[in-house]
Amino acid sequence: MDSQLAVGIDIGGTTAKFGIVNREGIIIEQDRLSTTAHPDINDFIDELHNKLTPMIERAGGLEKFIGIGMGAPNGNYYTGTIEYAPNLIWKGIIPFAQLMTDKFKLKTTLTNDANAAAVGEMIYGCAKGIKHFITITLGTGVGSGIVIDGRIVVGHDGFAGELGHTIIRKGGRFHKGTGSHGSLESYASATGVRETAFEFLAADPVAPSLLRQYTTEELTSQLVYECAMLGDEIAQKVFEFTGEILGEALANAVMFSSPEMIVLFGGLTKAGDLLMTPTVASMEANLIQVFKNKVKVVYSNLKESDAAILGASALVWDIE
Amino acid sequence: MDSQLAVGIDIGGTTAKFGIVNREGIIIEQDRLSTTAHPDINDFIDELHNKLTPMIERAGGLEKFIGIGMGAPNGNYYTGTIEYAPNLIWKGIIPFAQLMTDKFKLKTTLTNDANAAAVGEMIYGCAKGIKHFITITLGTGVGSGIVIDGRIVVGHDGFAGELGHTIIRKGGRFHKGTGSHGSLESYASATGVRETAFEFLAADPVAPSLLRQYTTEELTSQLVYECAMLGDEIAQKVFEFTGEILGEALANAVMFSSPEMIVLFGGLTKAGDLLMTPTVASMEANLIQVFKNKVKVVYSNLKESDAAILGASALVWDIE
Repeated sequence: MDSQLAVGIDIGGTTAKFGIVNREGIIIEQDRLSTTAHPDINDFIDELHNKLTPMIERAGGLEKFIGIGMGAPNGNYYTGTIEYAPNLIWKGIIPFAQLMTDKFKLKTTLTNDANAAAVGEMIYGCAKGIKHFITITLGTGVGSGIVIDGRIVVGHDGFAGELGHTIIRKGGRFHKGTGSHGSLESYASATGVRETAFEFLAADPVAPSLLRQYTTEELTSQLVYECAMLGDEIAQKVFEFTGEILGEALANAVMFSSPEMIVLFGGLTKAGDLLMTPTVASMEANLIQVFKNKVKVVYSNLKESDAAILGASALVWDIE
Repeated sequence: MDSQLAVGIDIGGTTAKFGIVNREGIIIEQDRLSTTAHPDINDFIDELHNKLTPMIERAGGLEKFIGIGMGAPNGNYYTGTIEYAPNLIWKGIIPFAQLMTDKFKLKTTLTNDANAAAVGEMIYGCAKGIKHFITITLGTGVGSGIVIDGRIVVGHDGFAGELGHTIIRKGGRFHKGTGSHGSLESYASATGVRETAFEFLAADPVAPSLLRQYTTEELTSQLVYECAMLGDEIAQKVFEFTGEILGEALANAVMFSSPEMIVLFGGLTKAGDLLMTPTVASMEANLIQVFKNKVKVVYSNLKESDAAILGASALVWDIE
């Protein structure tokens, strides 16, 4: 066989990204599709089929494809279902892998989107050759993929790796999606950074800040970053605080599975050292002696738009 | 071969327990030895050899033995060393497995004492046949052994599974051994229960309590339990609070590795429902939907004095 191919699909809250990927991790062609515009899952899959079919044809036809790999919020590796995903338009339990297999006539493997990202890091990214690592996705939410002995941890029911929902600050910030208080996701996500900025602005109403020029609607984590880079003190403190909490969560994770590396991924990582420095300092401060100065914390070197597709497609090689 | 045998040794802060164990998990003979009385590790091993040699002879001689399994605080599976164990008299890095092999001429496998307990539960205890579970030892300290896909999680350096040191209450109680604040161990251990009792007594100096009849020296977690069973309100609140914190830690662990079962073990489990009820309630309250009402939390059914030896000996069969 000259070159085998896979379809990689990343299902997000607003957009699905998909592409044709070869064994070397080259995305031959890619496209995207709105998820929110298709509240009926069958409509969504029909539209996905319409878009993918010509791409598959151009790549040499169905017989060159080993399968479809999918990453999705609350995706279950064992059952191929998406179950009660708070951030998706499709409610309840969706037998996604089965629906895809029926439609495309290709074996479909589905997992949690963060787990797919971890597989991507393991096969194509900075965790290549590393047997024990954790990937944390810092996006709209916080996802995690845990690798132990070279294998993704899925747990007894396929749902393991939800570090975003672990409680880091007892009685802390309310999370609308889950009803919990003080979870990692409620702080160390794009949403969390925005909320921290509002809290800090409210706590010191007279302190000057570039952040005050934006309305509640306008302010994004990206703008908080830009203000911080312009020297805005409150904006800088927002990232210090975010890193402090993220570091506490990383320390707890390290004392659980003792990984060699933690790979951070997603929109918030654009903050660079502004986030990395307080994160590592806080992690180290919360580790007991035997774990100190051992864990490499790095930002993913995969292009963000590609990584989700790559990770999802890598599931196909992984399960072959 | 009629019956193969193993030596199981559990190294504790004050006492080492050891025994001869067969494949069925029957402890044929056992004994114990003070660890604190032998500040030189070579003296300790000599004395252990003196005590074990006649036991090995009575059991049929060295040729019937497959090996020695040891559990020890800060024991490292990869290197066979004990490293910087705060609760042991031997300081620095002790090449324990090598010293034992040299002395006994038997292959020695060493691991963290909590990991050894998990192996014991997996082979002889209530986790038999279960692929994903966590064992939490609630003794003087809090240890943990994590099993994923039927294998103990040791991490990249052999030190994984230190849930006792994860931070559950940011800025909380100081832990003398590690310098951390708010770790699970500082609350959910025998030592922690004692401290909680003192805190609760001090916080409400006029409330009547049976606990007040004991001096600081006298009060133990066992006495707190006995007072609680006699209806003492403060003593009961101590266990409620302990369970609340333990449950929060269990919830975080469940969202990490999604185990089917959590096995609690050690002195504090004598508290029975007094501890179990608030622990499970708090765990469930802190889990996101997808994990709720799925995890069995149970007390170990292994006899406490036997379990440590059994678990350590089981390492021998495990690595054969």
